[in-house]
Amino acid sequence: MLTLSESGPLSPPQLGSRHWPGLIHHYAQWLPVTDATPVVSLCEGNTPLIAAPAIAKRMGKPCEVYLKYDGLNPTGSFKDRGMTMAVSKAKEAGASAIICASTGNTSAAAAAYAAQGNMKAYVVIPDGYVAKGKLAQTLMYGAEIIAIKDNFDKALAMVRQLTEKYPVALVNSVNRYRLEGQKTAAFEVVDSLGDAPDWLCIPVGNAGNITAYWMGFCHYYQHKKATRRPRMMGFEAEGSAAIVRNQVIEHPETIATAIRIGNPASWVRAKASYQASHGTIDSVTDDEILDAYRLLARSCGVFCEPASAASVAGLLKYRDQVPAHARIVCVLTGNGLKDPETAILHSHAQIQTGVEPDLKSIVKAMGMD
Amino acid sequence: MLTLSESGPLSPPQLGSRHWPGLIHHYAQWLPVTDATPVVSLCEGNTPLIAAPAIAKRMGKPCEVYLKYDGLNPTGSFKDRGMTMAVSKAKEAGASAIICASTGNTSAAAAAYAAQGNMKAYVVIPDGYVAKGKLAQTLMYGAEIIAIKDNFDKALAMVRQLTEKYPVALVNSVNRYRLEGQKTAAFEVVDSLGDAPDWLCIPVGNAGNITAYWMGFCHYYQHKKATRRPRMMGFEAEGSAAIVRNQVIEHPETIATAIRIGNPASWVRAKASYQASHGTIDSVTDDEILDAYRLLARSCGVFCEPASAASVAGLLKYRDQVPAHARIVCVLTGNGLKDPETAILHSHAQIQTGVEPDLKSIVKAMGMD
Repeated sequence: MLTLSESGPLSPPQLGSRHWPGLIHHYAQWLPVTDATPVVSLCEGNTPLIAAPAIAKRMGKPCEVYLKYDGLNPTGSFKDRGMTMAVSKAKEAGASAIICASTGNTSAAAAAYAAQGNMKAYVVIPDGYVAKGKLAQTLMYGAEIIAIKDNFDKALAMVRQLTEKYPVALVNSVNRYRLEGQKTAAFEVVDSLGDAPDWLCIPVGNAGNITAYWMGFCHYYQHKKATRRPRMMGFEAEGSAAIVRNQVIEHPETIATAIRIGNPASWVRAKASYQASHGTIDSVTDDEILDAYRLLARSCGVFCEPASAASVAGLLKYRDQVPAHARIVCVLTGNGLKDPETAILHSHAQIQTGVEPDLKSIVKAMGMD
Repeated sequence: MLTLSESGPLSPPQLGSRHWPGLIHHYAQWLPVTDATPVVSLCEGNTPLIAAPAIAKRMGKPCEVYLKYDGLNPTGSFKDRGMTMAVSKAKEAGASAIICASTGNTSAAAAAYAAQGNMKAYVVIPDGYVAKGKLAQTLMYGAEIIAIKDNFDKALAMVRQLTEKYPVALVNSVNRYRLEGQKTAAFEVVDSLGDAPDWLCIPVGNAGNITAYWMGFCHYYQHKKATRRPRMMGFEAEGSAAIVRNQVIEHPETIATAIRIGNPASWVRAKASYQASHGTIDSVTDDEILDAYRLLARSCGVFCEPASAASVAGLLKYRDQVPAHARIVCVLTGNGLKDPETAILHSHAQIQTGVEPDLKSIVKAMGMD
C-alpha cells in the first residue's frame, strides 16, 4: 500500500464497489480525459434526486416531481461539476495556478479544487465589493482575492488578458471544460430514473447549465442510454430575462443573485437547446421565486438558494401544460445555506418568545390546548 | 403510473439501478423497519468519502486518510441519518407532530423531515436565545419555535413531559431510533472502502455518533461484511471534555458549538465503544480545532463546521501512533456553511483592495512580477 499521490491518474483508487470516485472517474468514457489526466476531485456529483410529492400534488393531476439537488455538491453548488474538469485539465496542461473573476459560487468552487489539487487560486473582483460574508468560502479555501478599482467587466477582461501572457489557467465560464463536467448531471438523472424525464425545469442565468444538461441528454440518447430526451424548460428571473426579452439587460436586478446576469455567456447555445427539445425559456418574478423557495423548504424539506427555486416557480407557472402521468425533474443548483440572510428576511416564520416554562403555557403556544 | 404517495411503504420507488433511495430503503435489512413503515426520506446518506492526501502527508509515513463528509446530507449534518428513522417511526406510530429541544443541527433536521413527511414540527428553546441566524434553517423549514423563560435543561424537561401526555413524538437524542439511523454511516464507510478502516477518528459531543458508528462496525463484522473493526478514536473539545475528565462540565465552553456539551447523553455507551475497540477518547484544544479547520479548507478543499475538525485535530495529535500503511477515516459531521461567522473571523485570509485595473498592478498583487 502506498501513499496516495496528490492527484491520481485516471484509474480510480482501488476501493469497494460502492465507492463513488467523483464524476470524472465515474463518467470518464464520456469526458475529454485520458489516463494522463491528473484528476482533482472532491467526490463531486452523485447528488440526490429527491421525490417532491407536495409539488406533484399542486399539478392537479397524477404526475411525479423530483428535485435534482445539486446544492449537495462539495462546495454547495453545481459549479463543482465543471470545476473538477477545468482544474484537472489545467493541471494536465502544466498550470500550477488558476484564476477567475467571480464573487459567487464559481470562486468558491475554484478555490476548493485548487486547494485539493495543491495549486494556487486567484480571484479578481471589483473593489468596493465589501460583502466579506459572501466570500467566506473562498477565503476559507485560501484563495488570493484581488479587488481592482473598476467594475466586473473590467475584472473579467483583465483575467482573460492575464491568462494569455502568464502560466495561470482561466476557469471562468469561457473555459470549455466547465460544460463538459456539468453535463454529467443529466447522466445522473437518467441513471437514477432509468430513462430521461418528460420535463427538465432549470434556472437560467449564464445559460451554461441548460446547455450542459441538453448536451448530456443528447449524448445518452445517441448512445441508447435513454429512449428519449426531455423538454427543456428554462426560467430566467424577470429582472434579468435577457433571453426572454431578446436583449442585453444593462442593470439586471433580482433577489436570485446567482442568476442575476444580463448578458448570458451561453445565450445562443441555450436557445438552440430549448428549441431543439420543443421546450421554452420564460421568466418568473421575484415573488414567484420566493414563493417556490418557501414551498420547497416548508413542504418538501429542501432548503435551496433563491435562484434554484426559479425551476420550481417555472413549473408552477406552467402547471396547466404538464401532461398527465408526466415525470418531471426540477434542478436545484445551490444550497440555501449559501445565503442565510435571504432565508431570515423571507421565511415568513415567527418565533413565540416569553412563554412561561410550564406545560399548560407551552401546549397553548403550540395551539394544542 | 401513479402519483407518489406522500410517504412510501418500505419498497423503494421503481427507478433506475443507480437511484439512491435514502438510507432506510438501502439498509432496510439492518434497521428496525418493516413494510408497514411509512418512510420519510430526503435521500440522506450516501455521502462522499474524500481522499485527503494533504493530511496523509502530515503523518510522516505511508498511509491513507479519507474524510467521511456527512456535512453533505440534505440539511448539512449527520443528524439527518437519525432523523429519517425517528420521523418515519413516529409516523408509523401514528404521530402527526414531532418536537425537540435544540438550537442547532437537530432542530434543522427535525423541521426538514417533518416538512417532507407532512407533519408539524415544534422546537422548544430557551428565551433570550436571540441568534436568529442560527435558526435560519429551522425557520425556513416551517417549524414552530417556542422560546420559554428558562434554560435549556428546562426546555428538554418540558418536551419530555409533554410527549408523555400529548400525541407528539419526541425526536431528541433520547429517541432510540436516532442511533439506528446514524449507524448506517459505518456501513457506508465499509461499503466504500471494501472493509473497515484501521482507525476511525470522530468528534465527540453528546457521544451518540461514536456509539452509533461502533454499532454499525460491529453489525457488519458479525455478519462478515467486514473482516475487522477499527480503533475508535473520539475527540472532545477541551472546554467540554466530560468523558476525558470523567466529570460533568457545568459550563462547557468551546468554539466548536456543535460539541459544546457538558453531560453527554451516550456517555456510558461511548466509553464502552472506544474501550472495546482498543481506541481512545481524548480532548483537543480550540486552537488545535481551528488549525485543523483551516487545514481542511486550505489543503483539502473541504469546508466543515468547527466541531467536525476535532476529528482531524485528534488525528494530528496522535500522528506518532499511526501505524505505517494505516487506512484512516476522519468523520466530518457538519457543513461549514452552517457557521459562516467563524469562517470569516478565523480564515486568516486577506483581501488585497484598491489594486489599479492594469495588468502590471494585478500581476504584482499576485506576487508574479
